[in-house]
Parts: sequence; C-alpha cells; structure tokens
Amino acid sequence: MDNHYFQSDPQLNSALKKVNQLINQRIKVNNQDLQVALKKMASKGGKYLRPAFCLTFAQFGSNNNWKSPQLIKIASSLEILHMATLIHDDVIDDSPERRGEESIQAAFGKDTAVYSGDLLFTVFFDLLVETMENSPYLATNAQAMRKILAGELGQMNQRYRQQSLLEYYRNINGKTATLFSLAAQEGAYFGGADSRTVHLAKHIGQNIGITFQILDDILDYKTDGGLNKPILEDLSTGVYSLPLLLVLKDYQEELMPYLAKKRTMTYKDTLKVQELVNRYGGVAKAHELAGKFTNKALQLIDELPINGTQKLLKRVTTQLLDRSM
Amino acid sequence: MDNHYFQSDPQLNSALKKVNQLINQRIKVNNQDLQVALKKMASKGGKYLRPAFCLTFAQFGSNNNWKSPQLIKIASSLEILHMATLIHDDVIDDSPERRGEESIQAAFGKDTAVYSGDLLFTVFFDLLVETMENSPYLATNAQAMRKILAGELGQMNQRYRQQSLLEYYRNINGKTATLFSLAAQEGAYFGGADSRTVHLAKHIGQNIGITFQILDDILDYKTDGGLNKPILEDLSTGVYSLPLLLVLKDYQEELMPYLAKKRTMTYKDTLKVQELVNRYGGVAKAHELAGKFTNKALQLIDELPINGTQKLLKRVTTQLLDRSM
Repeated sequence: MDNHYFQSDPQLNSALKKVNQLINQRIKVNNQDLQVALKKMASKGGKYLRPAFCLTFAQFGSNNNWKSPQLIKIASSLEILHMATLIHDDVIDDSPERRGEESIQAAFGKDTAVYSGDLLFTVFFDLLVETMENSPYLATNAQAMRKILAGELGQMNQRYRQQSLLEYYRNINGKTATLFSLAAQEGAYFGGADSRTVHLAKHIGQNIGITFQILDDILDYKTDGGLNKPILEDLSTGVYSLPLLLVLKDYQEELMPYLAKKRTMTYKDTLKVQELVNRYGGVAKAHELAGKFTNKALQLIDELPINGTQKLLKRVTTQLLDRSM
Repeated sequence: MDNHYFQSDPQLNSALKKVNQLINQRIKVNNQDLQVALKKMASKGGKYLRPAFCLTFAQFGSNNNWKSPQLIKIASSLEILHMATLIHDDVIDDSPERRGEESIQAAFGKDTAVYSGDLLFTVFFDLLVETMENSPYLATNAQAMRKILAGELGQMNQRYRQQSLLEYYRNINGKTATLFSLAAQEGAYFGGADSRTVHLAKHIGQNIGITFQILDDILDYKTDGGLNKPILEDLSTGVYSLPLLLVLKDYQEELMPYLAKKRTMTYKDTLKVQELVNRYGGVAKAHELAGKFTNKALQLIDELPINGTQKLLKRVTTQLLDRSM
C-alpha cells in the first residue's frame, strides 16, 4: 500500500498496514468478483487519511497507541464509512472511475454497488459495536453518518442552482469535514487525551476537512486534471462549487448563458465556464479561503500539548493540503 | 393508516399509530419532495407487520407494554430498516412501483433513492443507540442487517442460475426471515419475557418469515397478480424462486429452452414458464412447504406461556400467512 504522506513515520505506516489488514478481513462477501473489487478498492490508491489522522491524534493521549487493537478498529471504521459513501457516490454520479480503477458500479452494475455500500455500512456498524458500546461516541458516529448523508442530499438538492456560500459550507461541512473531525476527535478521545485536547482535535479536524474539500473543488477547475478525477466533473453534474460560487454573483451575465443550459451544457460549455472562473479570480479566491482554514487548523494545532506528535501532525496536515500544488 | 390485520385489537392499533408518528418525526430530510415521498411510503400501504410482531411478543413479558416508549422505538427501528432495504431493492430492480405508489427511485431517480435508503440506515442506528446501548441486541441488530444484505447479495449472485434449495433457503432466511425473527425476539426480550420465551420467539419469527417469503414467491406465479407487484417480476430479473426450483430438476428439458435465454427472455416466455411451473406442480409443492413452516410456527406458538396474547398472535399469524389466498 503506497501511502507516501507518512513514509517518514514507520510507526504510523505500520499501524496503517494493520488497518488495511483488518479492513480486508471484514469486507468478506459471498460474491467472488465483488470481493476482489472491494479488496482492490480497499488497498490501492486510498491514502487512508482519516485513519492516519485518527491514529496520529491518539498519540496525544497517555498511552503508546500505535498498536492498540481498539484504535486500529476505530481507525478502520472511519475508512470503511468513507468507502461506503464513495461507492454510493459513484452510483449517483455514474462515475466510471474511482481511485484509478473502474468504479464498482461501472464494473458490476448499480445493483452490486448499492448493496456493497450497504454491506460496508454494516461492517462500520459492527466495528462501532465492538469498540464504543459504553461511550458517547456510538451516538456521535450515528450522528456523523447522518451529517454526511445530509450533506450529500443537500448538495443534490442544490444542483444547477446558485446556492449561497452558507449552503455550500453547510454541505461540505457535512459531507467531508464531519469525517475528518470525527477521526481526529475519536483518535484523541480513545487515545486517552484530556478533554481540552479532544475538543481541539474536533475543530482541527473540521478545519482540515473543509480545506480538503475546497482544494478538491478547486481541482475541478484546474486545467491539468490529476488525482484520478476527470476535470469539470462537478460542473457537468450541476454541482456549483466554491470557485464558481465566488464569482457567480459579480459575473452573472457572462456565466449564466452557459449555466442556464443546465443538463444540456456541452463539454465545450464547461471548458468555457472553467476558463471564465479562472479568469475572474474564482480559483485564486478559493485558494485564499482554503488558506484561511489551513491557517486556522495550524493555529489550533499550536495549542495542542507539545510533543513529538505535534510535528508529525503539522507535517501531515501541510502535505495533505498541498496535495494540489 | 389502514392496518386491517389488527383492527380487532385496539391496543395494538394504538401502539402502531405511535410507531407511525415516531417514524414520521425521524425521517426528516432537507429536501421537500423527498420528504413528502418518504412520508407517503411510511404511512400508506405498509402493514407494519414487523413492528406488530415485535409489540405483540412484548406482551409475553412481565409488563403492560403497549405504551412503552422504548418498545415503540424498537418496533419503529424494525420498520425503518425494512423501508431502507425496500428503497434500495427498488434501485436494483428498477421497480416503478412500491406499495401502490411510484417508487422513490422512479419518481426521483436512483440518486435520491440510494441516499434516502442510506438516511434511513442512519435513523435505524440512531434508534438502536437510544434503546439498546447496554444490551447484546446492538450486536444482534448489526448482525441482522448484515444477514439481510448477505441474503440479497446471495440472491443477486444466483441470478439466472439454477440454485439449490439450500441456497434458496439461505438467501430468504437472510433477506426476509431475519427481520421477522429479530422483531419477535426483541419484542419478547425488551418486553421482559423469560429467556425460554425469547428463544421461542426467535424461532417462531424465523418460521413465519420463511413462510412469508415463500408465499410472496408463490404470488409471482399466480395469474391474478395482486399485492401491488407485477407478476413474474422475480422471473424476469433472473430470480429463480421456490415454485420454479421445485420442478426445475425434473423438467429441465421443458423449462431450460426458456430459462437459457436469460436476459433475452420475452414476456411471453415468462408467461410460458409460469404456465409450466403451475402445470408441473411447482406452485402446489411450494404451498405445501409453506404449510409445513406455518405449522411449525403454530406448534411453537403453542409452547408459549398461555395468556390472551397467544390468541392474538395466532390470529395475526394465520391472517398474515393467508394473505395470498
């Protein structure tokens, strides 16, 4: 498993390998083709960012936590939930690709993709029951799952509409930031950190998550593609993300002729919109905003207890958020 | 809400109304059309069989349980899980109809249907967390959800294949009987029944569930349709159910010419298969088997503690399993 963000930390790498092993054990299905596909998806390309954050934050606790079976399970649960939502997202978007491979829905049909996602939800649930039964985090996880879905549904609701920045933030907060926030918070909590640290972790995770999504949205307007996603994917499915939203108000006249076509927008139209969004500074402004959230995260990280882990965390965060540059 | 199975029991009816109210409160989504659709699905046509079994079995416990908020929540969780799987099933089957209404996926697209099902899963989790945190039933529910999905995946795996009777039973045990078994078992347990009764409940529910599914499969071969399902739906999607499986071995030559066409089977072909299955006694044999499971259920019911509830339960069971006649 190639996870170059953390190559320099052998303990984290070793823990992530355990996460990978556990996930592979748990995603057993009575369907051979599907099992091969799920295993491929689990091990290739996914950077295990959420488990990594979870495990890293655990180091702010009182124990040496890299090997804790409970933490490995909790970290795995985050990745499992993430995989489940990805698989279902692909059904929605009709995505042919995910993580450089044919998506499960393209290879096996929507049928199998829907049920595979559902299966992963049960695995997620199993892991929660095994690790969090007598803690408030069972409810927190249930709530997180709901927020993620509400974020996705909210985004769907706003397709081909000029949503407000508030609605945009609300949706990305749900669909992306929630999981990073949960990862950090859970890691700190179950690692034995004090409540101030757990609280900080929650907000650090949230800020990182928001930045992560904004950078992902910016990628959609970059001319060099990358990261295994076809460019302009959001735009072509009616998802008006930050770079566009930031210039839409001031440049209604120039942009609306294309956007008003909605589903009949051609690829050429999307390229034109991409050009305009860049020209009008939408990408630059979005980068600026992403920078603000990054700085907020880094400030909060500075408030964490000082130990070797803080350096690792800063390094991880900076690398993750520079991914597009 | 029309639930004519239990019209004669005002306390059960009253409890089911509370279940309906709770479900309506919980299925809130930030999408108005969808909310209307979910509410419609929740209140119209669904007979609330699973909640009814749950609440009825609770009466074998030591308390007067018709009004217990905890039991209302548990009963609701069963119906919510059932709804979630129905919505996802419809995405798979491309069903235009469910419960006499346009299915969610036909009305709003696969997108919304996938996410709505996911949303209901989160509501299901929420209810479990609220009611079962310190009991073994959290794990039991997680396990039940997995069995249901494994049953569906198993059935998908066997499409257009001559599955064995064992595989058939395994799949219907997972996808249908599990939930009835869980409903009965949970009802008894949280109603405060003794462990012998809980154990009996589990097996009564399972037998009823198997019968229920067999009768549903038989309906597919009946010439009068009914129950809001287009006839021959299973066959046309490659699901070879009991009536067909029971005659397939002995009448390979006559049946395979049609079945071998698989996805290219015409409606006329399915009508022919239906005719042959009836002629060769597949429907009659299936009825016979259903009768065996029904009798088993009734025998076990006779072993329950004697009280007024036993009569209600027998009446409910007999009515439910006569639904096709």
